[in-house]
Amino acid sequence: MSTPPSERLRELGIELPPPPSPKGAYAPVARSGTLAWVSGQIVFENGAVVRPGTVDHDVPAPVASELVRRATLQALSALSAELGGLESIRRAVRLGVFVAVSEGFHREHEVANGGSELLLAVFGEAGRASRTTVGVAGLPLRAPVEVELLVETA
Amino acid sequence: MSTPPSERLRELGIELPPPPSPKGAYAPVARSGTLAWVSGQIVFENGAVVRPGTVDHDVPAPVASELVRRATLQALSALSAELGGLESIRRAVRLGVFVAVSEGFHREHEVANGGSELLLAVFGEAGRASRTTVGVAGLPLRAPVEVELLVETA
Amino acid sequence: MSTPPSERLRELGIELPPPPSPKGAYAPVARSGTLAWVSGQIVFENGAVVRPGTVDHDVPAPVASELVRRATLQALSALSAELGGLESIRRAVRLGVFVAVSEGFHREHEVANGGSELLLAVFGEAGRASRTTVGVAGLPLRAPVEVELLVETA
Repeated sequence: MSTPPSERLRELGIELPPPPSPKGAYAPVARSGTLAWVSGQIVFENGAVVRPGTVDHDVPAPVASELVRRATLQALSALSAELGGLESIRRAVRLGVFVAVSEGFHREHEVANGGSELLLAVFGEAGRASRTTVGVAGLPLRAPVEVELLVETA
Repeated sequence: MSTPPSERLRELGIELPPPPSPKGAYAPVARSGTLAWVSGQIVFENGAVVRPGTVDHDVPAPVASELVRRATLQALSALSAELGGLESIRRAVRLGVFVAVSEGFHREHEVANGGSELLLAVFGEAGRASRTTVGVAGLPLRAPVEVELLVETA
Repeated sequence: MSTPPSERLRELGIELPPPPSPKGAYAPVARSGTLAWVSGQIVFENGAVVRPGTVDHDVPAPVASELVRRATLQALSALSAELGGLESIRRAVRLGVFVAVSEGFHREHEVANGGSELLLAVFGEAGRASRTTVGVAGLPLRAPVEVELLVETA
């Protein structure tokens, strides 16, 4: 990582959203040693889930991909709040992407790319995480996508 | 953790269930360094899945939440068998909750709280794990919920 | 592990498939310390998903179990490419199995055994990982099963 992630975000014109507030008795981020697990993120705006429904019946795949990008950005915001910035992140280790699918939709991997590409843009090659993407029957509050992230810190 | 978890369980009037037996060629718990991964837990009683079906068509959400609590307790029982007690657990790191959902049910996060609240009750703030909760199309043997747990040990 | 895994594979008459190519901007394997996370694997042959559909409507359970075995073998191939062989693998830590289920199918655990049994055959008791198995609404490109693997390395 030649360019620090916070500077990279500025160059990309991206502002971190406010850190997410858990919907229950859990932590936004839990750390053990040099690993930090971010809780599953769904995208909220003004207290409501953005674009509720399934992909692609209610939410077109490109919109869902953009929501995966935003959920991943929320995960970075949670990490920034926990770590006091993004500079101590050494690499993205695992991205988990859950897509609430309509019958017949099978391009979950394209939807997930919104998150993978954000990580690459912010962290360079250190953002190239492993990834698991699946289609699910439903998500909390009818969210169309949910993203979890594991990173390594200094 | 001022109070040891085993004492906390006694205070709460909770007895650990018998450790679960894997439904296949896998381990109840696998450790690496100071991390211990517990296999996905579904709740059994007298050799049968408790309250088979989906939430909330067959199983009301509050019942499902109680089953998440019991599945999390089973995970602690598996850890206790592996570690010779719960005292070496430093913190709960990640709770994964899968809810077999009926069409139109979108309160998976409320169902998951049964597990998160148990961890807080037993471990105090060290029980505040990260969490990922999703709705799934089905679970082994028609279980309504499945719970996996990652903890840090001494 | 008395017998090295590569020799065990030869004894079993198993050849590692070519390492998988990611379907997006992610890494086949991401490492942190002595842990290595393999991305979710679906089984391809000649550029197409093998036996697309759901279990057991389109794909009988025993066939799906064999596909879990092959997906797990692909995960080992990804690890072998990353680590320069399988000899530095100390143990399998966690196997995640996602089964795209038809309505009424609830034997995901039997389907998952194809992966667990392969790990035992290749690594002996060091292959006995923890496991989480769930049924999902869909998988990328209509794959019937997806497998993710976490291992500990030297």
